[in-house]
Amino acid sequence: MNRKLRMGMVGGGKDAFIGAIHRIAANMDGLIELAAGALSINPEIAVDSARSLFLPEDRTYLTYEEMIKKESQLPADKRIDFITIVTPNFAHFAPAMMALDHGFHVVIEKPITFTLDEALQLKKKVDETGLILALTHTYSGYPMVKQARAMAQGGVLGKIRKIWVEYPQGWLSKLSEREGNAQAAWRTDPKKSGKSGCMGDIGTHAAHLAEYISGLKITHLCADLNVMVTGRALDDDGNVLLKFDNGAAGVLMASQVAAGEENALKIRIYGEKGGIEWAQHEPNTLLVKWLDQPAQILRAGAGYTDRLSSFATHNCRTPGGHPEGYLEAFGNIYRNFALTLSARIDGKEATPEMLDFPRVEEGIRGMAFIDNVVASSASSVKWTEFKV
Amino acid sequence: MNRKLRMGMVGGGKDAFIGAIHRIAANMDGLIELAAGALSINPEIAVDSARSLFLPEDRTYLTYEEMIKKESQLPADKRIDFITIVTPNFAHFAPAMMALDHGFHVVIEKPITFTLDEALQLKKKVDETGLILALTHTYSGYPMVKQARAMAQGGVLGKIRKIWVEYPQGWLSKLSEREGNAQAAWRTDPKKSGKSGCMGDIGTHAAHLAEYISGLKITHLCADLNVMVTGRALDDDGNVLLKFDNGAAGVLMASQVAAGEENALKIRIYGEKGGIEWAQHEPNTLLVKWLDQPAQILRAGAGYTDRLSSFATHNCRTPGGHPEGYLEAFGNIYRNFALTLSARIDGKEATPEMLDFPRVEEGIRGMAFIDNVVASSASSVKWTEFKV
Amino acid sequence: MNRKLRMGMVGGGKDAFIGAIHRIAANMDGLIELAAGALSINPEIAVDSARSLFLPEDRTYLTYEEMIKKESQLPADKRIDFITIVTPNFAHFAPAMMALDHGFHVVIEKPITFTLDEALQLKKKVDETGLILALTHTYSGYPMVKQARAMAQGGVLGKIRKIWVEYPQGWLSKLSEREGNAQAAWRTDPKKSGKSGCMGDIGTHAAHLAEYISGLKITHLCADLNVMVTGRALDDDGNVLLKFDNGAAGVLMASQVAAGEENALKIRIYGEKGGIEWAQHEPNTLLVKWLDQPAQILRAGAGYTDRLSSFATHNCRTPGGHPEGYLEAFGNIYRNFALTLSARIDGKEATPEMLDFPRVEEGIRGMAFIDNVVASSASSVKWTEFKV
Amino acid sequence: MNRKLRMGMVGGGKDAFIGAIHRIAANMDGLIELAAGALSINPEIAVDSARSLFLPEDRTYLTYEEMIKKESQLPADKRIDFITIVTPNFAHFAPAMMALDHGFHVVIEKPITFTLDEALQLKKKVDETGLILALTHTYSGYPMVKQARAMAQGGVLGKIRKIWVEYPQGWLSKLSEREGNAQAAWRTDPKKSGKSGCMGDIGTHAAHLAEYISGLKITHLCADLNVMVTGRALDDDGNVLLKFDNGAAGVLMASQVAAGEENALKIRIYGEKGGIEWAQHEPNTLLVKWLDQPAQILRAGAGYTDRLSSFATHNCRTPGGHPEGYLEAFGNIYRNFALTLSARIDGKEATPEMLDFPRVEEGIRGMAFIDNVVASSASSVKWTEFKV
Repeated sequence: MNRKLRMGMVGGGKDAFIGAIHRIAANMDGLIELAAGALSINPEIAVDSARSLFLPEDRTYLTYEEMIKKESQLPADKRIDFITIVTPNFAHFAPAMMALDHGFHVVIEKPITFTLDEALQLKKKVDETGLILALTHTYSGYPMVKQARAMAQGGVLGKIRKIWVEYPQGWLSKLSEREGNAQAAWRTDPKKSGKSGCMGDIGTHAAHLAEYISGLKITHLCADLNVMVTGRALDDDGNVLLKFDNGAAGVLMASQVAAGEENALKIRIYGEKGGIEWAQHEPNTLLVKWLDQPAQILRAGAGYTDRLSSFATHNCRTPGGHPEGYLEAFGNIYRNFALTLSARIDGKEATPEMLDFPRVEEGIRGMAFIDNVVASSASSVKWTEFKV
Repeated sequence: MNRKLRMGMVGGGKDAFIGAIHRIAANMDGLIELAAGALSINPEIAVDSARSLFLPEDRTYLTYEEMIKKESQLPADKRIDFITIVTPNFAHFAPAMMALDHGFHVVIEKPITFTLDEALQLKKKVDETGLILALTHTYSGYPMVKQARAMAQGGVLGKIRKIWVEYPQGWLSKLSEREGNAQAAWRTDPKKSGKSGCMGDIGTHAAHLAEYISGLKITHLCADLNVMVTGRALDDDGNVLLKFDNGAAGVLMASQVAAGEENALKIRIYGEKGGIEWAQHEPNTLLVKWLDQPAQILRAGAGYTDRLSSFATHNCRTPGGHPEGYLEAFGNIYRNFALTLSARIDGKEATPEMLDFPRVEEGIRGMAFIDNVVASSASSVKWTEFKV
Repeated sequence: MNRKLRMGMVGGGKDAFIGAIHRIAANMDGLIELAAGALSINPEIAVDSARSLFLPEDRTYLTYEEMIKKESQLPADKRIDFITIVTPNFAHFAPAMMALDHGFHVVIEKPITFTLDEALQLKKKVDETGLILALTHTYSGYPMVKQARAMAQGGVLGKIRKIWVEYPQGWLSKLSEREGNAQAAWRTDPKKSGKSGCMGDIGTHAAHLAEYISGLKITHLCADLNVMVTGRALDDDGNVLLKFDNGAAGVLMASQVAAGEENALKIRIYGEKGGIEWAQHEPNTLLVKWLDQPAQILRAGAGYTDRLSSFATHNCRTPGGHPEGYLEAFGNIYRNFALTLSARIDGKEATPEMLDFPRVEEGIRGMAFIDNVVASSASSVKWTEFKV
Repeated sequence: MNRKLRMGMVGGGKDAFIGAIHRIAANMDGLIELAAGALSINPEIAVDSARSLFLPEDRTYLTYEEMIKKESQLPADKRIDFITIVTPNFAHFAPAMMALDHGFHVVIEKPITFTLDEALQLKKKVDETGLILALTHTYSGYPMVKQARAMAQGGVLGKIRKIWVEYPQGWLSKLSEREGNAQAAWRTDPKKSGKSGCMGDIGTHAAHLAEYISGLKITHLCADLNVMVTGRALDDDGNVLLKFDNGAAGVLMASQVAAGEENALKIRIYGEKGGIEWAQHEPNTLLVKWLDQPAQILRAGAGYTDRLSSFATHNCRTPGGHPEGYLEAFGNIYRNFALTLSARIDGKEATPEMLDFPRVEEGIRGMAFIDNVVASSASSVKWTEFKV
């Protein structure tokens, strides 16, 4: 590859949270440049945001339709390679479909779509077009999550028996959606967010992490979703019992009313011979516990590379002891997507490490998780089968 | 009080785990002396154990019946004040009833009895006799657990919304009951342990801690108990969804197959304004998280006694930074029991701090928890009402 | 041994801090009973304290001289076996010498004496009499300190290159000795405490720990002692560079004005192949770091006893995950002293594990450390030779 | 500013460690683009590296002289704005001087130069030209380091009494410079690294951090530098006693033979009323300890922005709980440099937050630290005055 990949962004104007994160993640490794944008449905914000990002005027668009149409008419050595969609959930599907239809690869913020049905349609389109769709399930981008995956799936823990995954936040402990908090407003609005609040927003991350690391699939669940703050339209808290396809039992806990918590995502997986524990709070550490030996502290970037999975080392930029964080994990999804796409453009084969980023299939699992967990919570029967 | 209280012990011979712990706990503060014992049903072990504990021969008994009978005939200034029962679960009830009938106060290792019905009978007997029965739910003896209780019940967290309590162990990850592990053998044997294994042994501790700290009562539960090790007769793992009487939601997780875990009891409680977190691993610390302020680290024995509950400071022996542990927590139950009993003997009033130890009522909740959790696990209905 | 050892206590009346700690430590394991006491130089406090400890009137003494004299005249099956000295530093020597002269073994709170010369005399007396003198350098009683010692001296770290030991406290951040704090008053008074404040009180603990674990001896030091609180008579802070007899370099930091610190004793030792880290804050953990492998977490009482030194397991009372703390570490010194003394009384040989407690030799090193560190601090030359 | 700033890089070709870090840091926020490079003294590597970074051929230079000369002849809307120097220490001065002479701003990896004299000349040149020179003392870029600075200098801790700063690494525990480790080779070579190894490489970071946070200046020091690995040409370990200009005492410890350590930079500062503790290992946390209140955990990006310094919040990209790390800290130096430079180009005033990055003055302190610490280590006198 002799140039940076060119990115067009849908959404992510001034004051949007996740758009700025996507840009940092895409910038970081010098593999991608922001080349075009339809950054807001508000024209003034769209223009203003583009200017502050140094986008040229002729590639500052007011709608994603305009961007996709005009970009597709540019010569190949100018036009964008892919679009990134960072709008609220309800506005993911249409630009993604249109982009694929016009030959652009796609990166989407999770949850992939507004409904499961949309996600299934998107998969059909991806399959038809052969284009690449990356889904930013950020937490799977952490090197020590990949190390955990390699160990859990490599068998060193023996058969997996227990999975405990938790994602407590506290930021919705008050009715902030009525107090001018824009993030809170759309995320608790069923018309913009979907049929679940907390479970859609962060429960899906936890479920993805459990399946990604363990390689197991949830087959049944028993959910207790709650609206803890009076007046809120969607669940802000939930606890879910899980059954996995190998017989393992699990618990998924997600909350946005765990007052005082930040983004305390944590997962513990136990097998016959030992367990692993990873927490976002200190993401460069993987704690490995053994039944009959002292626990070990595995560290990202450590010198003992023979003890670490190539998937972990591939996703580190610095030697051990220089903490990498959330932005690097996010950057790893962009980097692997970019390496895969560059390899394709160059007619080369991408390595398994490059190909390791979430896609439409994970998006479908996430949307199905939302559907199933909402159905289970409404049911008086204990176990609800996980259906896609 | 001008003398130590005299203790007679039932069970706890050589190689028994919990009997030795009870003795250390009773010895520690110089308020209690071991004066008599029926330490084993094996006469040789009983005699041998008594000798190594420096018990006089004339107070070394071969059965608890003999001990209770003979001790009750000794003059008041010689005979034991109370008996401590540290036998396996199935052998708690009979000596406890007989002791109460003969005017002896009682300390019992948890779970209080083999069945809920026995526990209810014991309560009747305690009520009739007016004697004191202490139940060693050890974890409630930690100073920072008491601090957590004072804060949760004192309202500083606002209305409580979430309770997450977990007790992972890994020591039953193999079929150790078939490999000569005596502790494993009786604890996994329904005839000695009762109708639940993991939930009876450690789930009850977790449930007690949740109710003790929060002051709330479990009203409904939804349990998933598992036998993870093939060939085992009782549950060795379980996850339980909880509803509390104020509307709070909770999760209780207990496992004896979380390979690599020791006794990682931990509880987190969240209210409208903040949350508290306590873990046995570092028991002198209570982490207090606030919605709108930096989290605080409250420490047992710290100089800022005005910030600590009198129930926390009463249960500390050393200034901050000298870690107190499990044995001191255990000792606090004995110490408060002894102070209460001494006050009664002296005709004085015990303070609320002295009176703060688990009793027959907590034992009944524990037995009911076992019954309800086993019933729920067997049911296909989601929520089981917590019945006593 | 068919009885408890009988202890007579000098000092430790009501409101004394360390006396109460000694009693808990001595009580804990049921091997020792408090049989006599000269608990205060204030007769009222002496009598009152003895009563509250259930000492009989005829063994409540008003002076240590009286106690030693009268006890030595009691029949062998009544009289005390040893005396414990818990008075301020200046009042250690005289009772210790008199006790030894009358055939009593001795336990002394550290620092052993007021001056190095006294310590040397005491050693002579111990050597002459053949009696046992135990010095309560508490921190060497922790099981994982013993594990650290076994590893450092067993060679698994390779040649030791670095020792960093630190003991920050904050309790003397104000001029508390003028505000009615009795502990502060005597500890900052050169007439009661000796020629050093902070270094004598806690620096000696740190120095002992470094030598105890590493097996190395300090040969040179370069000290910077400070009086940080205006008006204080003795050092309340100090930093010391160290040289050890194998060429290792070290730093010892001790402070009583590290505001906000409790008793944050911590030691790190690095060799050619790895390092160990132990901190009192979480005393059941020994962190072992390796040059070419993941760090390991060694835990007191863990199931992998083949990985732990017999000196570590001998000093644990509970299985892993039941935290043992400061009082148990203190208790280990009493327990090992008692086991050694009992073995001697029974004519048996004590095991190396029993014999592992600090003695007069460590007391001499401690007093020499004080002398040398004070001399170095006053000197403008960089390195002061460590002389005894 | 309506464009990105254009950077020219000196050094940082393939396989160089720190050059890649500088590029990530510069890329991250979309404010800077790599526009030219003289990436290696080896022409093949220079060209190859430039190509893989997508540099155009006409801005791929073989020497820094060529780059500076040719770039200075380009039109203003094309030529680079500044050069970044990431060569080994001995090759900092010449390109920096030449760049300044040709009107380019400069970013330099630390230590700023090879000798103190060079640093002083550089300052003269900076003063003459009025250009901006940024020095990448990375650790001062962490948000919670800035929070620590705001608190220490804002007086909430009272007068500062103690500073303990430590930087242990283990990567030079073997004679790696003889085993083909290129990083080890130049860093232990006096001709490339300067008169100190460990102290120059990481001791300077520790010294800078102590002065940066506290606002105090080192006035005297007493150093013990060691060569722990036989055959090494420069110190690989050192301990230094410090005196600060307000009377505070300190210790600086740096080591590259602390086997098993990564980059465990940590600082603790204690004042009359409390202390602060920051460690790179978990850089988003600042522990604040109080003499009379519970310790607090301040977190980067937390919601309680009224409790955080504007200097801390300005340097965060994400809400609390999304860990930011070393690369973001590095990026903050570039970002603040870029914001300051952009403001100047736009004729606007930079805010104090933008102006907060290390400069030539800090570089001089660093070089003087090396000189003084080496002189002190060679001296038999205890205290060496810190001279510039």
